[in-house]
Amino acid sequence: MTVELICVGTELLLGNTVNTNAAFISEQCAMLGLSMYYQSVVGDNAGRLERLLCVAKERSDVVILSGGLGPTQDDLTKETAAEVMGKKLVEDPRAKQEIQACLEKLGRTITENNWKQAQVPEGSKVLYNSNGTAPGIIMEEKGTCMILLPGPPNELIPMFEEQVYPYLRALQPETICSKMVKLCGIGESAAETKILDLLDSQKNPTVAPYAKTGEVHLRVTAKAEDEKTALSLIVPVEEELNRRFGDCVYTDDPKVTLEEAVAMLLKEHGLTVTTAESCTGGLLAGRLVNVSGISEHFKEGYITYSNEAKEKLLGVSHETLETYGAVSPQTAAEMAQGGAKAAGADLCVSVTGIAGPEGGTKEKPVGLVYVGCYCKGKVFTEKKQFSGSRSKIREYSVANALTFLRKVILDEAAGK
Amino acid sequence: MTVELICVGTELLLGNTVNTNAAFISEQCAMLGLSMYYQSVVGDNAGRLERLLCVAKERSDVVILSGGLGPTQDDLTKETAAEVMGKKLVEDPRAKQEIQACLEKLGRTITENNWKQAQVPEGSKVLYNSNGTAPGIIMEEKGTCMILLPGPPNELIPMFEEQVYPYLRALQPETICSKMVKLCGIGESAAETKILDLLDSQKNPTVAPYAKTGEVHLRVTAKAEDEKTALSLIVPVEEELNRRFGDCVYTDDPKVTLEEAVAMLLKEHGLTVTTAESCTGGLLAGRLVNVSGISEHFKEGYITYSNEAKEKLLGVSHETLETYGAVSPQTAAEMAQGGAKAAGADLCVSVTGIAGPEGGTKEKPVGLVYVGCYCKGKVFTEKKQFSGSRSKIREYSVANALTFLRKVILDEAAGK
Repeated sequence: MTVELICVGTELLLGNTVNTNAAFISEQCAMLGLSMYYQSVVGDNAGRLERLLCVAKERSDVVILSGGLGPTQDDLTKETAAEVMGKKLVEDPRAKQEIQACLEKLGRTITENNWKQAQVPEGSKVLYNSNGTAPGIIMEEKGTCMILLPGPPNELIPMFEEQVYPYLRALQPETICSKMVKLCGIGESAAETKILDLLDSQKNPTVAPYAKTGEVHLRVTAKAEDEKTALSLIVPVEEELNRRFGDCVYTDDPKVTLEEAVAMLLKEHGLTVTTAESCTGGLLAGRLVNVSGISEHFKEGYITYSNEAKEKLLGVSHETLETYGAVSPQTAAEMAQGGAKAAGADLCVSVTGIAGPEGGTKEKPVGLVYVGCYCKGKVFTEKKQFSGSRSKIREYSVANALTFLRKVILDEAAGK
Repeated sequence: MTVELICVGTELLLGNTVNTNAAFISEQCAMLGLSMYYQSVVGDNAGRLERLLCVAKERSDVVILSGGLGPTQDDLTKETAAEVMGKKLVEDPRAKQEIQACLEKLGRTITENNWKQAQVPEGSKVLYNSNGTAPGIIMEEKGTCMILLPGPPNELIPMFEEQVYPYLRALQPETICSKMVKLCGIGESAAETKILDLLDSQKNPTVAPYAKTGEVHLRVTAKAEDEKTALSLIVPVEEELNRRFGDCVYTDDPKVTLEEAVAMLLKEHGLTVTTAESCTGGLLAGRLVNVSGISEHFKEGYITYSNEAKEKLLGVSHETLETYGAVSPQTAAEMAQGGAKAAGADLCVSVTGIAGPEGGTKEKPVGLVYVGCYCKGKVFTEKKQFSGSRSKIREYSVANALTFLRKVILDEAAGK
């Protein structure tokens, strides 16, 4: 089955907004095994939208639209789509009721144009919106299905996950299941090289790599007549991926992030951690604090951007800083050791490097980063050379520090 | 003049990649005063790309393509576009030379398919690539112009800024100039309400609002026969915006970020700052460290996620934490005061709040955040209620803390 996406909104054509809805819907459709050949963006213009819809209706089985469902005159996605599908608009009493309740809760005055959002194409399935006033809509007519979704991601994402995903899955003759094998500590091309045979020969299940900052995600997707069979097709592929990537695999749950995987390890082993950051300046701790409930394992962190702060807060020796410099394995090691001592934590990860664009030398170029990790009396360091902008180098440093912390915990647990 | 954008890449249709190129190119085109009515995404498929190109060529004056210029068999943007424009491919000697130099620098083995990238449509303008091997291309034929750009943003962005932008500007009969008036400390709808008359009546210059996290950017764009006249049209509008928004305006330079504006203020007044963070867990310091050269003004920061750390590192009193709780104006104030003392800094910004999704109560709901700021013996606090996910609440808290810090410095300088 083919699907195509049309995002409506002048803000997208002006570049005011990055189209994250397109990436979200595309990934969901890929998970459902739907083939997407086209995406379009068009402004709030009835004529141009109508022409696109007529073309899309001919070439795709399912047309998903996002945006243009608001209460103003500019918003005309629903009116245009209903016309193309030959449907009249009628008022939906439940939609009206929910719009009223939503606006009252927000303390907004209800104006006549709010009721425009309660109008739905006759005979359509209404997707009630628990996060806003615009209901979504599913229209079916002669083998074409049009799905209209509100533009704001905080409304679109839950509506898609809760209502559209199950609807599209039921349309499919086969059941699609997928798992996300997430890797850290290996680059994209190295990861792809290790599984070229699987990527090339893939039919069912398929394996698709997604490159993220400091991580590679492998989506394994299988089709079968029922969920049990589909999952049983995934098992051997996942086992093979685990065999090939070993400790680089940190989860097979699409919802689990690297920092959550680290937090689970800390919990499993009853450990506390602290951070001692120079060039990342708090971003590493910021990632750990992404995990709701990390407070059991992370209590405090140090940002020591100056040499004086490294001495004062972490007890790095003046001599080390003078002899080897702030960006050195020796400093990274002393930062980790001193941080753990200051915080009374079992572990401490440290990062020191040259994020640029200034400050690089021939010996210590921009992108040179040392990560240190103290763990129960021992201290380990790692040297990395990243490239890119200041912010890219800092993001990679953070991902790498989390990966290194995870490795040290795993090695310690394995008695290595 | 109308422009349309076609992004080529199966990774976009699978949702592996968010299409940030589209937002970048759209904003640049808006700055140039070009009208964009359509954007499309298509996979690496010659037939579908050809059909799109034929339609685009008819309806738009300029067609910009990104992606599909790589060395592999899959990459067929150049071949397809050349065919649609009726051009033969020929080898460009300089492109060949630069590809060789680039690959040698990277230490890569050169294979036969690398020379595919040195092929360019006959009579086209070649855009040499200083960040990769794929040259960009500009083709003109009977009133249509096609511009081909490499997909990776680190190659596309500098190529566009340095080569495509001046080319497109020269095509325009008029000169377009724009300024970006950036605001903090005011919400999107409040900002729009203040300038509804300017937004409605706008013709030349136009004013377009762009909502960012905790900020609103207003782009003022004018067209005229020359740059001087265009800039002179902008002046009274910018003055009017400054008059209406006052201290909320932090820059009119599109390249300057909020943290850079704060850093410039610190420099101007010879001040040092430190951070004391609870729920933001390092992200506030991380924003300050985005500024290369901040080390003169920011030397260290404290992440005090637990109550014990707030007492130990910042000297927040046990009684305050017991009586008012960690999320209270009293704690925010003591964090700011204690942080400045511990770091020996002139200023300290503190953040404490409930980022959720757990931990909210009726009295202190998720999203409640207190920001504190110590400045030369005085301490100020602010209460905010944000909504959204844990990460959104934390991002808004950081933007708000920077805004508050800026306000305190300005007020202090004005003797308020």
